[in-house]
Amino acid sequence: MTLLSRSDLFDTACQALSAAGANDTMARLTATALVEADLQGLASHGVTRIPAYAAHLRNGRANGQAEPRVLRQHGAVLMIDAGQGLAYPACHLAVQQGIELARQQGVAFAVVANSHHFGAAAYHLRPVAEAGLVGLALGNSPAAMPAWGGKRPLFGTNPIAAAFPRAGHDPLLIDLSLSNVARGKLVVAAREGKSIPLGWALDADGQPTTDPQAGLAGSMVPAGGVKGTLLSLVIDLLVGTLTGSHFGFEADSLLDDEGRAPRVGQVFLLIDPAALAGQETYFSRIECLVDVMLEDPNVRLPGAQRFSRQREHEASGVEIPEVLWHKLQQLAAAPGVA
Amino acid sequence: MTLLSRSDLFDTACQALSAAGANDTMARLTATALVEADLQGLASHGVTRIPAYAAHLRNGRANGQAEPRVLRQHGAVLMIDAGQGLAYPACHLAVQQGIELARQQGVAFAVVANSHHFGAAAYHLRPVAEAGLVGLALGNSPAAMPAWGGKRPLFGTNPIAAAFPRAGHDPLLIDLSLSNVARGKLVVAAREGKSIPLGWALDADGQPTTDPQAGLAGSMVPAGGVKGTLLSLVIDLLVGTLTGSHFGFEADSLLDDEGRAPRVGQVFLLIDPAALAGQETYFSRIECLVDVMLEDPNVRLPGAQRFSRQREHEASGVEIPEVLWHKLQQLAAAPGVA
Repeated sequence: MTLLSRSDLFDTACQALSAAGANDTMARLTATALVEADLQGLASHGVTRIPAYAAHLRNGRANGQAEPRVLRQHGAVLMIDAGQGLAYPACHLAVQQGIELARQQGVAFAVVANSHHFGAAAYHLRPVAEAGLVGLALGNSPAAMPAWGGKRPLFGTNPIAAAFPRAGHDPLLIDLSLSNVARGKLVVAAREGKSIPLGWALDADGQPTTDPQAGLAGSMVPAGGVKGTLLSLVIDLLVGTLTGSHFGFEADSLLDDEGRAPRVGQVFLLIDPAALAGQETYFSRIECLVDVMLEDPNVRLPGAQRFSRQREHEASGVEIPEVLWHKLQQLAAAPGVA
Repeated sequence: MTLLSRSDLFDTACQALSAAGANDTMARLTATALVEADLQGLASHGVTRIPAYAAHLRNGRANGQAEPRVLRQHGAVLMIDAGQGLAYPACHLAVQQGIELARQQGVAFAVVANSHHFGAAAYHLRPVAEAGLVGLALGNSPAAMPAWGGKRPLFGTNPIAAAFPRAGHDPLLIDLSLSNVARGKLVVAAREGKSIPLGWALDADGQPTTDPQAGLAGSMVPAGGVKGTLLSLVIDLLVGTLTGSHFGFEADSLLDDEGRAPRVGQVFLLIDPAALAGQETYFSRIECLVDVMLEDPNVRLPGAQRFSRQREHEASGVEIPEVLWHKLQQLAAAPGVA
């Protein structure tokens, strides 16, 4: 492992994306998100994604010159076109404009069409919580789980995140995917030559496997059986029908270099407590629940570990596997895309 | 079992609720919802609930004279006060006004405060789908599952439902609770003197149990482990902080006769596809996914079984356990509450 400061990791990540063809804003917003994931201990959603992102920028699966734009705004809904660029600038625009809209309308339903991998879903909700709003984030991803009773993977592992602001404390941050584990953990295990526990994945014949490569070629085990499958269907439907983006089964894996533009999508729901029972009620009620949760010494608040790791790593630096760090440096030094 | 026509079951259900003190609208809307659940094969959410509802109406846990009213409307949000009545009139009002609001604003976020058990969550979304809108329904319920790592039940089994309309077909209807099974199934098993499978519930010491009574005194097993727990926390937070209603841990069981008014809440999100990628895109995209799902002969569309059972039982009648039918007749014939 190589110990790096946040700024060294950020600079190299940014350069690697720029050299592959990302415009300045895309490189900066993408590197910010990925480095924050590494700081929070979410290696599977951190700079480990950059080699695939760079390949996509170079081979046209992602458009480095895309600039997100507002396709529609009507009442309390907002639709952003990511233009098949990396997802971060479009999600940033959806959230920034969504915050304004939720303040006016009490709620904003902001969707992103024609998008790409959006990393750790909860990342996008930090500014929402800082604005004193409640946020939910959903995204679909390439097919990894079959419909219940079926064999062919159709739905993604489709993350769900939520952020609830607290007065004077980190927000409560919930972030999960609908497979038992995120697919990115198989990628990390495969890269490191490690086996995976039973219950994470099935091979292409539908049999339990401890081989991450066999799992990547097969399907992920849904969280809660049919319930995880049904919730992933809901997210695929919300994205695919309301934004017109690809369903999971139409999107090639984001973990492979080659394939078509993923054209997946994201959905953000922002809610202003002031428009409902009121801010005062909101903040006193959330503290009421937090107090009861913390009465049990074994209960940790959701998100707390991420925030404490982030503070620790901001100060001490973050460890990145040596082989990945060399790859990022190579990418950063590579001749740029015209 | 006693075979009953829909209208005979409805009339007796209505009379049982009226005699216990429900006003006409409350009795009618409640009986309609419960009988539909029985017709759809959802016995645990059907007229089996009436003895507890009637007890609540008689002892003040539910106010039979409550009339739901709009507490706040601002932009695209709407807050209804159920007035501690049975939930159905308030949910009906939230959905009816939510449909109008979503047509104007593209989306409506309609919440119900100070409410009671709302039955099968997807029931409330039928009119949403009939209006051509996408709907989500969430509700919190009395504590049944501990926070992750904790022992004391804090969060409810908190149902999530979604409805997606299709052109010329029944909507796709997703309806699930966040425990491995709904708590109502333990009640039915306990009433019928049957054991329950391992994996449904833990006893009060946190040990797996096959005894439904021990499970009701203990906690429910969350669907997908920590993921079910986290999603149930999200729903408890949405309801408890935004509507000011009770969290699950503040609400006494809806299955017991005695206790305080539950004051739980519900959340409905209604989305107009016309305000996003458009109706034409919506309807063609949903058929695209349905076609792919049905390529596998073992895949059933979500909700299809409910609709086919309902059509069958509308024609042939529905079977109700004899002891329950006698109880309903007794309640219907009981002296009314002044």
